Amino acid sequence: MTINGEGGSHKLATGIAGLDGLLDGGFSPGRVILILGEPGSGKTILCSQYLHYGATKEGQKGAFIGLNEPKARFMGEMKALGMDFEKLEADGKFSYIDATEVKRIPEQAKVGRIPVGGRELGLVNLIDLIQEGMEKASPTRVVVDSVSDLIFRYPNVEERRPVVLDIVEALQSASATSLLTSELLSTGESRELQPEEYLAEGVLMMRTLSKGTRSIQVRKMRGSKIDTTPRPYVIKGGGIEVYATEEIYEHSGRG
Amino acid sequence: MTINGEGGSHKLATGIAGLDGLLDGGFSPGRVILILGEPGSGKTILCSQYLHYGATKEGQKGAFIGLNEPKARFMGEMKALGMDFEKLEADGKFSYIDATEVKRIPEQAKVGRIPVGGRELGLVNLIDLIQEGMEKASPTRVVVDSVSDLIFRYPNVEERRPVVLDIVEALQSASATSLLTSELLSTGESRELQPEEYLAEGVLMMRTLSKGTRSIQVRKMRGSKIDTTPRPYVIKGGGIEVYATEEIYEHSGRG
Amino acid sequence: MTINGEGGSHKLATGIAGLDGLLDGGFSPGRVILILGEPGSGKTILCSQYLHYGATKEGQKGAFIGLNEPKARFMGEMKALGMDFEKLEADGKFSYIDATEVKRIPEQAKVGRIPVGGRELGLVNLIDLIQEGMEKASPTRVVVDSVSDLIFRYPNVEERRPVVLDIVEALQSASATSLLTSELLSTGESRELQPEEYLAEGVLMMRTLSKGTRSIQVRKMRGSKIDTTPRPYVIKGGGIEVYATEEIYEHSGRG
Amino acid sequence: MTINGEGGSHKLATGIAGLDGLLDGGFSPGRVILILGEPGSGKTILCSQYLHYGATKEGQKGAFIGLNEPKARFMGEMKALGMDFEKLEADGKFSYIDATEVKRIPEQAKVGRIPVGGRELGLVNLIDLIQEGMEKASPTRVVVDSVSDLIFRYPNVEERRPVVLDIVEALQSASATSLLTSELLSTGESRELQPEEYLAEGVLMMRTLSKGTRSIQVRKMRGSKIDTTPRPYVIKGGGIEVYATEEIYEHSGRG
Amino acid sequence: MTINGEGGSHKLATGIAGLDGLLDGGFSPGRVILILGEPGSGKTILCSQYLHYGATKEGQKGAFIGLNEPKARFMGEMKALGMDFEKLEADGKFSYIDATEVKRIPEQAKVGRIPVGGRELGLVNLIDLIQEGMEKASPTRVVVDSVSDLIFRYPNVEERRPVVLDIVEALQSASATSLLTSELLSTGESRELQPEEYLAEGVLMMRTLSKGTRSIQVRKMRGSKIDTTPRPYVIKGGGIEVYATEEIYEHSGRG
Amino acid sequence: MTINGEGGSHKLATGIAGLDGLLDGGFSPGRVILILGEPGSGKTILCSQYLHYGATKEGQKGAFIGLNEPKARFMGEMKALGMDFEKLEADGKFSYIDATEVKRIPEQAKVGRIPVGGRELGLVNLIDLIQEGMEKASPTRVVVDSVSDLIFRYPNVEERRPVVLDIVEALQSASATSLLTSELLSTGESRELQPEEYLAEGVLMMRTLSKGTRSIQVRKMRGSKIDTTPRPYVIKGGGIEVYATEEIYEHSGRG
Repeated sequence: MTINGEGGSHKLATGIAGLDGLLDGGFSPGRVILILGEPGSGKTILCSQYLHYGATKEGQKGAFIGLNEPKARFMGEMKALGMDFEKLEADGKFSYIDATEVKRIPEQAKVGRIPVGGRELGLVNLIDLIQEGMEKASPTRVVVDSVSDLIFRYPNVEERRPVVLDIVEALQSASATSLLTSELLSTGESRELQPEEYLAEGVLMMRTLSKGTRSIQVRKMRGSKIDTTPRPYVIKGGGIEVYATEEIYEHSGRG
Repeated sequence: MTINGEGGSHKLATGIAGLDGLLDGGFSPGRVILILGEPGSGKTILCSQYLHYGATKEGQKGAFIGLNEPKARFMGEMKALGMDFEKLEADGKFSYIDATEVKRIPEQAKVGRIPVGGRELGLVNLIDLIQEGMEKASPTRVVVDSVSDLIFRYPNVEERRPVVLDIVEALQSASATSLLTSELLSTGESRELQPEEYLAEGVLMMRTLSKGTRSIQVRKMRGSKIDTTPRPYVIKGGGIEVYATEEIYEHSGRG
Repeated sequence: MTINGEGGSHKLATGIAGLDGLLDGGFSPGRVILILGEPGSGKTILCSQYLHYGATKEGQKGAFIGLNEPKARFMGEMKALGMDFEKLEADGKFSYIDATEVKRIPEQAKVGRIPVGGRELGLVNLIDLIQEGMEKASPTRVVVDSVSDLIFRYPNVEERRPVVLDIVEALQSASATSLLTSELLSTGESRELQPEEYLAEGVLMMRTLSKGTRSIQVRKMRGSKIDTTPRPYVIKGGGIEVYATEEIYEHSGRG
Repeated sequence: MTINGEGGSHKLATGIAGLDGLLDGGFSPGRVILILGEPGSGKTILCSQYLHYGATKEGQKGAFIGLNEPKARFMGEMKALGMDFEKLEADGKFSYIDATEVKRIPEQAKVGRIPVGGRELGLVNLIDLIQEGMEKASPTRVVVDSVSDLIFRYPNVEERRPVVLDIVEALQSASATSLLTSELLSTGESRELQPEEYLAEGVLMMRTLSKGTRSIQVRKMRGSKIDTTPRPYVIKGGGIEVYATEEIYEHSGRG
Repeated sequence: MTINGEGGSHKLATGIAGLDGLLDGGFSPGRVILILGEPGSGKTILCSQYLHYGATKEGQKGAFIGLNEPKARFMGEMKALGMDFEKLEADGKFSYIDATEVKRIPEQAKVGRIPVGGRELGLVNLIDLIQEGMEKASPTRVVVDSVSDLIFRYPNVEERRPVVLDIVEALQSASATSLLTSELLSTGESRELQPEEYLAEGVLMMRTLSKGTRSIQVRKMRGSKIDTTPRPYVIKGGGIEVYATEEIYEHSGRG
Repeated sequence: MTINGEGGSHKLATGIAGLDGLLDGGFSPGRVILILGEPGSGKTILCSQYLHYGATKEGQKGAFIGLNEPKARFMGEMKALGMDFEKLEADGKFSYIDATEVKRIPEQAKVGRIPVGGRELGLVNLIDLIQEGMEKASPTRVVVDSVSDLIFRYPNVEERRPVVLDIVEALQSASATSLLTSELLSTGESRELQPEEYLAEGVLMMRTLSKGTRSIQVRKMRGSKIDTTPRPYVIKGGGIEVYATEEIYEHSGRG
């Protein structure tokens, strides 16, 4: 695998119907891509489809570093969408790294007898979990879902930025292609840009517009020709499906 | 009851005319769903209909953990809407857990001789009340109405987030399907997303748009195919009725 | 009088032409209703008409707890609008409780030799005035005009909320139907919701839209079927008149 | 003069062509009216016309309490607009009270040997100047132009509010009809309401809309039937002229 | 020269094609006028044309107090636009006062052995430079470009206001007609008004609208009849040219 | 090379198809130009094309001071776009100055035994790197990509401004023409202006509008006649291409 390879020929298909077309073939290997979305937009589903596709169609190992929910809950939810990660795990194609404790670390903690800020400890723990997961499983596809609980502990953007950077760089140093989910802070057209949008190498934004249309937009993808038009998508029984040639008919300025 | 079951066949009908259609049959068992609404949007009514339907039509026990108003007032108001919770209570189908004292706990309090922050005590008390209510009544349907008084005591979003998380997890650990109400912080299309929208597993948003139309939107529902189109609804003598096939005709961007 | 009675038959007519129709007959007895309005929208006039109608047409005693202006000024202004509260007072149908001193209490004060926060003292005083007024006059209709001076002394919303709650509960504990006025903090469609909108049991909002049209909207009314459409109104020689069947023709999103 | 008289017959004509019509005849005696305007909207000119008209047409004494500019500058500017206040002063019909020092009082000051906050001293000084001016000249018409320098020294709205209240009440206690100018804090339709809009008994708002049209709107006037439609106006050689029957043709939502 | 003279006959032509028409002939002598503009709107060019015209056409001395750039850079840039200030300087018609050090004064400084706030020192220095420049050169036309670096050192508006006032008054006390440039803080229609807009006696606002049209608007001019319509302008080889009879065709609400 | 030369004849072609036309021929020598853009807008690509064109077509040396990514990553990404900087480096036409450590300097650091703020140290380091790079390579074209990590460490705009100024002046003192990239803080039409927009001598803004159209606008360019109309652009295999004669068809107010 080439970390900096940009050619369409080496790209990783996303496994989401319609999405590869917007991405000129898929994700470039070695990249760290941000999945930024509103509540209920399907960030976790998109990431799971990415891993599931790689494991079942491409024979690529996947790792899911879950900060939001324990393994059993994740497994159950994805099974309901037709993705059997238990089987993939048994086949050595998937590993679930439970990082839910990261968000539970208190503000004040101790390492041995040395008091440390709990927030910093949480970050260190997450990065350790990422690195351990990488070493043990050598995955081709990695998901971190989500960093919001961790980064929202830092109230100021100047503190939040280096935390995001540390996570992005930990993922970059591994030879995998990673998706990182994060929560959109506000609805509507005019919004403050979030530091992770700048620090990640690619950005997909998932929103529910005012009339209920779901919209996905590839806003950034280093080294790829992309279609930046927002496109409608649905979440069906088998997961996300993007209508890659349709336009958003409702005024997209009012999401 | 299966906590992670996602099939439409196991869903709990909401008891609100028209709403089940938007939810692909109702609420999935074991979920914690946020009812986020403007003042006067009928959050409490919706929750009560949910409990009343379960008790009268499905024989499912319900529990209402009320932080806003004492039992008598709740009972009276719902009776006026045709829901006789006193009778259901007498039949062992309903229990009202009065949690109004939670919001009255002062900022500084003592547990024995140990001073503790009153806010933290309020949270601990609520979670205790939830757990006691669960153990004693073993309800299938639970309502917590509302968490706003508790969470608005935390001025910063980074403090508010773990409080919401604690409540959501307390509800998740019980084998019930729970509704949690919360107050929308602002009107209009462009707004800051609230942490509870991310932490709950489902979100229904209830608003009064600028020309007076009431609008309900299923914005999120883990594990369910949903209709995210905002739909008009009315509050009539018997409670809420959703016009599940109508669109909002006024410009919905101006709620 | 039934505190929780919701039937239209027991409702209190507002005394404002056109308004009862939006309220399904009037205000439900025992309720605490917020009159939220812009400067000059006629909040005090609406409240006075409510008291005057009750006293002259229904024989119901009324009490006006005035924080904004002394009795003589209130009496004079209402007389100019054709409401003779001096006569009603002489007839034992009206009492004016002067609470203007509440807003004058300094930030630091002493109760005996104990220093207390002046803000808290102001709140305690207002609640005492409310309770004394209730005990002495046993009014059916009560007005508190306005709570803004008191609550705006609390800069943060998490402090302001319990203050509003204390006032609302003081009014709820009396067997009267109360109107509470408060000032809208901003113009326009997108605005932060104010805690009193959630804590009161009903909300009427009065605004002056951008082209000068006056608009009244019933946004909330626990236990009543309401018409939430904003309606135009005028302030004429005899007070407020609502055009309950007319729509706002100018774009109401730009108030 | 009747302080609370509301009849049109006793009203004070404003002296501005077209404006009396919007005010149902003029200003009611004894009132404190806020002239709230954008930069360059002509607040000072409007106030000067009010005083000049009273002195020359009605024989009413006027006083101008000027915080913004020294007497000579005021006199010169108004002369250029055809208002000879020097002559009126010589005739005993006008007095100029120079209050420019009020805004120059430093943050920390001493009264005798007691250190006091300079802001508070500034407020006390202004109120003293108002009261002295009232006693000495017994004016019928009073102008305070402007309070912005004083009130903007208080960064928080909860501090600013009692300052405005003190000034309004100092003016109310005199038997004059007073105009108080203040600066609008922001342009556009959606804006935070300023405390002086609530505390004054009348509000005139003067803006320059986005296409350059000047707009005046009577937003509030206790005890008067008013026309709240915004109307175009011009500043000509002789001062302000309001087109009281014309509408604002440009979208007024974009001031 | 008359400080308070307002007649069109004594006005100073601006030297910018088309602009005098909007100003009823030019700037009134003795005034302090704010040139408020977006980045790249041509504030410095406008001011230079004003000085250049006065020196070459009216024989009026000019002084440029430059806080942004050293003399050589200014001279070079203006020469490229066809304005030879070096020649004017040699002829005794122009002086450049380098005030770039003002913005370099550190936050903490010492006057002799007395520590003083650097911000205050910067202000004192600027005012000294203004007064020295006035005494030495006795200019008829003065430019201060720009005050932003100085005033943005004061984070709060209540601190910024007296600083602006000091500068405006220093300029007023000289018998010149002064232009003062400042930076607009935000784009778009709805914006917070800046204190310098109120404290200056005239305001010209220069913006680049969303479709790229440059727009100049005379928003305020004490003692002058002005055309407040925003007008398009261009920056050409010879400087700024205003199309004084054209309207802005794009929606001006979206600058 | 003339630092202040403004004539089109000496301008540096940008190397981006279509862009020189908007700039009246290219960038003026000696200028510091800000490339302000949204995430994924292609700021780094634009800058690289500028250097690559100079080196391959004009024989001008270029230097890239990279704060965001290490040399190898930069080289690889640009190669994928057809720009072989390794070859240019071997030919002595290009130097990459790795400044990624600048953003890694901790908040607290020591110079010898003297504790210094890490932020200040980061700034000093960057300026040292700029000056060393200038001395060693004597480049004609310089890029600093990006300053955001450095300047966002300063939470307040009054602190951020002098930092930007120091960087701009360090670049100005060299006899090169420099591009400086920075991140746009928010989307949409109404936004706060950033200090670097005022302090740089030219500004190009790159955005992705709501319907996905990419838009580039020359907002400022000292000493040049520019076309300020926003123009669509694409990122293709060979880099950025601007459609210099096309207009943005979607409502550009909703970026």
